[in-house]
Amino acid sequence: MNTRFVVRYLGLLMAVLGASVLLTAGADWVLTEHVTADVPGVKALVVSGLIGWLFAGLLLWLGRQGSDSLGRREALLLVALSWFLGAALSGLPYYFWAKLVCEPDHPFSSFVACYFEAMSGLTTTGATVLSDIEALPTSLLLWRATTHWLGGLGIVVLFVAVFPMLGVGGKRLFAVEAPGPSQPGVKPRIRETARILWIIYLGLTCIEIGLLKLAGMTLFDSICHTFATLATGGFSTRNTSVGGFGPAIQIIMIVFMVLAGANFGLYYHVLQGRWKRFFQDPELRVYLGILLVASLLVSASLIGERMFATTGQMVEPSVGQAVLHGTFQTVSIQTTTGFCSADFNLWAFGPKAILLVLMFVGGCAGSTGGGIKVIRLLVAFKVVLCEIERVFRPNVVRSIKVGKSVIDPAMRQAVLVYILGIFILFGLGAIAIMWFETGSQCDFITAATASAATLNNIGPGLARVGAIENFGWFSSPSLIVMSLLMALGRLEVYAIAVLFVPSFWRKP
Amino acid sequence: MNTRFVVRYLGLLMAVLGASVLLTAGADWVLTEHVTADVPGVKALVVSGLIGWLFAGLLLWLGRQGSDSLGRREALLLVALSWFLGAALSGLPYYFWAKLVCEPDHPFSSFVACYFEAMSGLTTTGATVLSDIEALPTSLLLWRATTHWLGGLGIVVLFVAVFPMLGVGGKRLFAVEAPGPSQPGVKPRIRETARILWIIYLGLTCIEIGLLKLAGMTLFDSICHTFATLATGGFSTRNTSVGGFGPAIQIIMIVFMVLAGANFGLYYHVLQGRWKRFFQDPELRVYLGILLVASLLVSASLIGERMFATTGQMVEPSVGQAVLHGTFQTVSIQTTTGFCSADFNLWAFGPKAILLVLMFVGGCAGSTGGGIKVIRLLVAFKVVLCEIERVFRPNVVRSIKVGKSVIDPAMRQAVLVYILGIFILFGLGAIAIMWFETGSQCDFITAATASAATLNNIGPGLARVGAIENFGWFSSPSLIVMSLLMALGRLEVYAIAVLFVPSFWRKP
Repeated sequence: MNTRFVVRYLGLLMAVLGASVLLTAGADWVLTEHVTADVPGVKALVVSGLIGWLFAGLLLWLGRQGSDSLGRREALLLVALSWFLGAALSGLPYYFWAKLVCEPDHPFSSFVACYFEAMSGLTTTGATVLSDIEALPTSLLLWRATTHWLGGLGIVVLFVAVFPMLGVGGKRLFAVEAPGPSQPGVKPRIRETARILWIIYLGLTCIEIGLLKLAGMTLFDSICHTFATLATGGFSTRNTSVGGFGPAIQIIMIVFMVLAGANFGLYYHVLQGRWKRFFQDPELRVYLGILLVASLLVSASLIGERMFATTGQMVEPSVGQAVLHGTFQTVSIQTTTGFCSADFNLWAFGPKAILLVLMFVGGCAGSTGGGIKVIRLLVAFKVVLCEIERVFRPNVVRSIKVGKSVIDPAMRQAVLVYILGIFILFGLGAIAIMWFETGSQCDFITAATASAATLNNIGPGLARVGAIENFGWFSSPSLIVMSLLMALGRLEVYAIAVLFVPSFWRKP
Repeated sequence: MNTRFVVRYLGLLMAVLGASVLLTAGADWVLTEHVTADVPGVKALVVSGLIGWLFAGLLLWLGRQGSDSLGRREALLLVALSWFLGAALSGLPYYFWAKLVCEPDHPFSSFVACYFEAMSGLTTTGATVLSDIEALPTSLLLWRATTHWLGGLGIVVLFVAVFPMLGVGGKRLFAVEAPGPSQPGVKPRIRETARILWIIYLGLTCIEIGLLKLAGMTLFDSICHTFATLATGGFSTRNTSVGGFGPAIQIIMIVFMVLAGANFGLYYHVLQGRWKRFFQDPELRVYLGILLVASLLVSASLIGERMFATTGQMVEPSVGQAVLHGTFQTVSIQTTTGFCSADFNLWAFGPKAILLVLMFVGGCAGSTGGGIKVIRLLVAFKVVLCEIERVFRPNVVRSIKVGKSVIDPAMRQAVLVYILGIFILFGLGAIAIMWFETGSQCDFITAATASAATLNNIGPGLARVGAIENFGWFSSPSLIVMSLLMALGRLEVYAIAVLFVPSFWRKP
């Protein structure tokens, strides 16, 4: 293991993250025109940023020598450590702020809670420990949103540009999008692909900020909500999440959540004018199909029923409102964003069950969305059908295809193992949370949906982690378990699972 | 599809089942020395038996012509229909009895409940709709136990003798036990194998009846409990299940539950004196290992804790009692028997979580036990390890072995799909039960464990389907869903799943 290489690049990452923290402090100073109430927040950010740079310097110095050879194991270790260490640095501003304003009962007075919040931001989960989000200074609200945006970008670059080159998890799946060894359509060199993705991501960000501003949001809220939408994160600046905004804003968000849940590699085709390739992508079609059918079912179930907004207000929704809330919530959950426009925890069992299933479906491969991913479910569905047919036609051999690509047995096995792994981690997570919450008022629905909502990077679950609830009441061990689940889900398990295999650490 | 062949053999099955019903009536008459209170029970059995024969005659007549060629599809259809139709006939005595004694509030006054009870018997699940089991006449108690015994025998013969010949599900797994095309150790011809299995099953039955009688049970209770143990069923003749019997009886039952959860094909080796092959079987070793570790953990968690017997009595168990109850309950759940010696629903979360996981583990392939089966989990575990290693060592190719047999990719895929299928059916089952029980007092733990306990053929679950509870309060749609889950679990999904694939019904 070339440890020095890993340490050096971790240092580089810390430096970038530290710079982001400092930039956020500056941006907040400009955006909010020096509000005095925000001084502790800005102070906390500046101190954290400088600590980040100090630590970065130490790491760069420790890793100053050693070759530049990036092996597969080094890359995996780097990816895993990036997220764990990044969350630690990203959680510092919250912690320092709570110390500065001297609020001993604030959730952020515990570093574990700050770590959870930061991990939730970077993994674009959107689960929060805060009960009163609006009490936070604007600087920290902006930092929360920025962690989403950085995490989302990091994930897109990793899964569309870096992992396919390394041959990790995503590759076999991404290969479905762009079949063949040369991956036509996406430039073969990591640097070039990463640059294009960065531009696409930035472009979408600018467009959404502009549209939200036009629809009546303040610039500050537009930026924060855009960061949270495109990363499929879900952090809002409001206690009522998106429920307090009007229909125009909600519709814009629906569109951008759908865009964020699709494969960013496909937008490269769009940039090149290859619309046909975009719309013929089999995963995209199934993704949109599931969204459409689920939205219709959920919306239909809401018509004529009483509904509670996230503000606590009761409404008898018109058909239009039912469709808007039904669609918004369906899209928000399946794309694993986690914004709430209504308190879906109070809905009937039917729509809740649909949302629960969608939690596991998730977005497309190469998107900022979490979950199992549509392409994997598509492959698994075809494998299951084949397997059933084999029982009564043992001699018929069928190749399994997605679009024009044949899914070879190794890829099938990878997909099946992945889905199985998610189910097992979900079960273990729920059991661990129940175990650590023995004696507290944690029912099984809460533990199970908390596990599902963090593992699949969604945010809210049901019952005590429902739409208008938060994760602040969990004990530290539970928060640590859920932080791990978020990282596992975000890095598609393998990058972290390898760390637990002894042979990973042995000399090859 | 050679329908006539299927119909004829269904007729034959009905005739055998009808004869069993009549024999049970006769056996009860002898065993209980003509108790008058039992007259309606015996009447119900006789009428049901005769109806069974009438129906058998009709089917035999309808299927009188047609060739004798047994295709794969015919065999699958026959297996699935056998269980569904068999449960209908086996439920008749309960229904007629409730009509004869004119108890309109009795659970058996609904035919769906009777069907559930019969399916629970034949699939060796052991879930009951009865709250007061002891109020049932001895004849029906004997019939309940007999459905277990017949179902258990049917399953062993199917999975060790018939399915391997047909190449269905079990074959690929059974091939692991007895590798090679000639299956050394087990006679290649179905009839011969079935005869040997029948003798082993009968032999074990006689031994256990004798031992239980020696330990102080009445002959009637010995027979009923032996039938329920060897089939890993779980129907008891007492409201307090096995909790009312002494330690000697419980220890005998532990031994026979363990025996019933092991591969019956292995006992053939024992009969031939090949003890080494028996003890070197990799599945058996893992099975015993899991049982041992889980028993120790559960027992340890019970020491020093208050415990409630199935009689409702509170005890502060000694170490010996804790070990006895911990072991009994662990063995009972993992072998999917479902007997209860204590109210484990009131145990701490830790031991309950272990039991919940064991519900999915189940017994060995070719046993009367349900669940996923140890061999599948063993294969899946090795595949997952391989898959993780492939992330950092993509060029290392390892063959996956269980014992001396190599598990080829097709077999791996079958195993992964099966486990995934069980998880999905479990989830769908839980959602369906929650859906149908909207408005009733069915919490999620109840619905989830009811789904797990029926799908894995265990019997009791947790909360409102816990050790001292029953399934009688469920609505008919839920009971139908659970009857389907029991059949799916019992026939290892495929034999029923094929019926839902359109191409199964088309001409090949």
